[in-house]
Amino acid sequence: MSATSAKETRRLTPRGEATRARIVMTAARLIYEHGAERVTLDHVMDESRVSKSQLYHYFANKDDLICEVIRLQTAQVVDASQQGLKRVDTLQGLRAWRNAVVRSFRKTGAVGGCPVGSLANELSGQSEEARRLLDQSFAAWSIIIGDSLARMKEHGELIPSAQPASLAIAVLAAIQGGILLAKTARSTKPLELAFDMALDFVAQHATS
Amino acid sequence: MSATSAKETRRLTPRGEATRARIVMTAARLIYEHGAERVTLDHVMDESRVSKSQLYHYFANKDDLICEVIRLQTAQVVDASQQGLKRVDTLQGLRAWRNAVVRSFRKTGAVGGCPVGSLANELSGQSEEARRLLDQSFAAWSIIIGDSLARMKEHGELIPSAQPASLAIAVLAAIQGGILLAKTARSTKPLELAFDMALDFVAQHATS
Repeated sequence: MSATSAKETRRLTPRGEATRARIVMTAARLIYEHGAERVTLDHVMDESRVSKSQLYHYFANKDDLICEVIRLQTAQVVDASQQGLKRVDTLQGLRAWRNAVVRSFRKTGAVGGCPVGSLANELSGQSEEARRLLDQSFAAWSIIIGDSLARMKEHGELIPSAQPASLAIAVLAAIQGGILLAKTARSTKPLELAFDMALDFVAQHATS
Repeated sequence: MSATSAKETRRLTPRGEATRARIVMTAARLIYEHGAERVTLDHVMDESRVSKSQLYHYFANKDDLICEVIRLQTAQVVDASQQGLKRVDTLQGLRAWRNAVVRSFRKTGAVGGCPVGSLANELSGQSEEARRLLDQSFAAWSIIIGDSLARMKEHGELIPSAQPASLAIAVLAAIQGGILLAKTARSTKPLELAFDMALDFVAQHATS
């Protein structure tokens, strides 16, 4: 399904690409607000102002569209982490990133949650294709975190036995769990506590 | 709604109570497997072998039934943690509990996820009543964890400045995030990494 739609994309005119992108962005917003199951294709058509035939020109079915939404949300989350972490190679830099993530979550009124985490929670047990894509999303995200930790290790900030890839998965789990508790409590506090635990865990592997 | 149904419960015959409990347990199982949005009342009626009039005798609507499902899942999760942690007052005891949680998750084939975490993810943004109940669920759960940590502090295993309640929230976040990544990866590894981070964090507050 997604292979077909990827091929389709290559053959689209600029106008067609714009329409397709509008559909995916609209679906991503609706699914973020209401969950994948609640959002119908009719809903997406209405909100993105496309006809049924237009929508089916770009996407074979709802599952196909959902896979594109996963790709879009992953790209955005990974890009944001990349921007926040690209020059980070110290514990101080990690703390600044932690503060930026908390600030950005606070701006949503501690409501939104993580789009990738929410999709993973909803779809991992429902669709094997979605689960695989979301597993890749978490992997890509933890690689970005792990790259910062690997730079810290290279610079001698972390001890030689530190394992950046494993540490990164634990940090990502803390962020995901922290966001889930925070959106349920409508407070940033659980995210702050979980993130601080994760950074303390990294600090335990510091040389000084 | 839930106040009404709580009142109803008190007036039920033993047979009525059994029917009501069967409906809630069936709904809990279906929602755990498919998510709250996917499960219809028709589906619950079929699977629990009750008529529409029976179901509406016990529950005002689907939201009312979902609240009962949240209460049931919370009671089960909190009870399991209580059983696992009631005599725990050492780091070693916490590690044994960690191993038991990982084992139990492995038994599900790393598929299921946490019923309370899944409900919180799906419903926190959709229903204020559900969000409040789920916030209380996490609070009750973290109190169980915090009680073990408070016992450790009383016995002098944790330093006087250790804050059991805050530590417990961080530990719960690690478990939730770890389970989310683990069910997406179909592997217990992320849960193990996140749980170990949480126990290391507790160990950092140990006196020895």
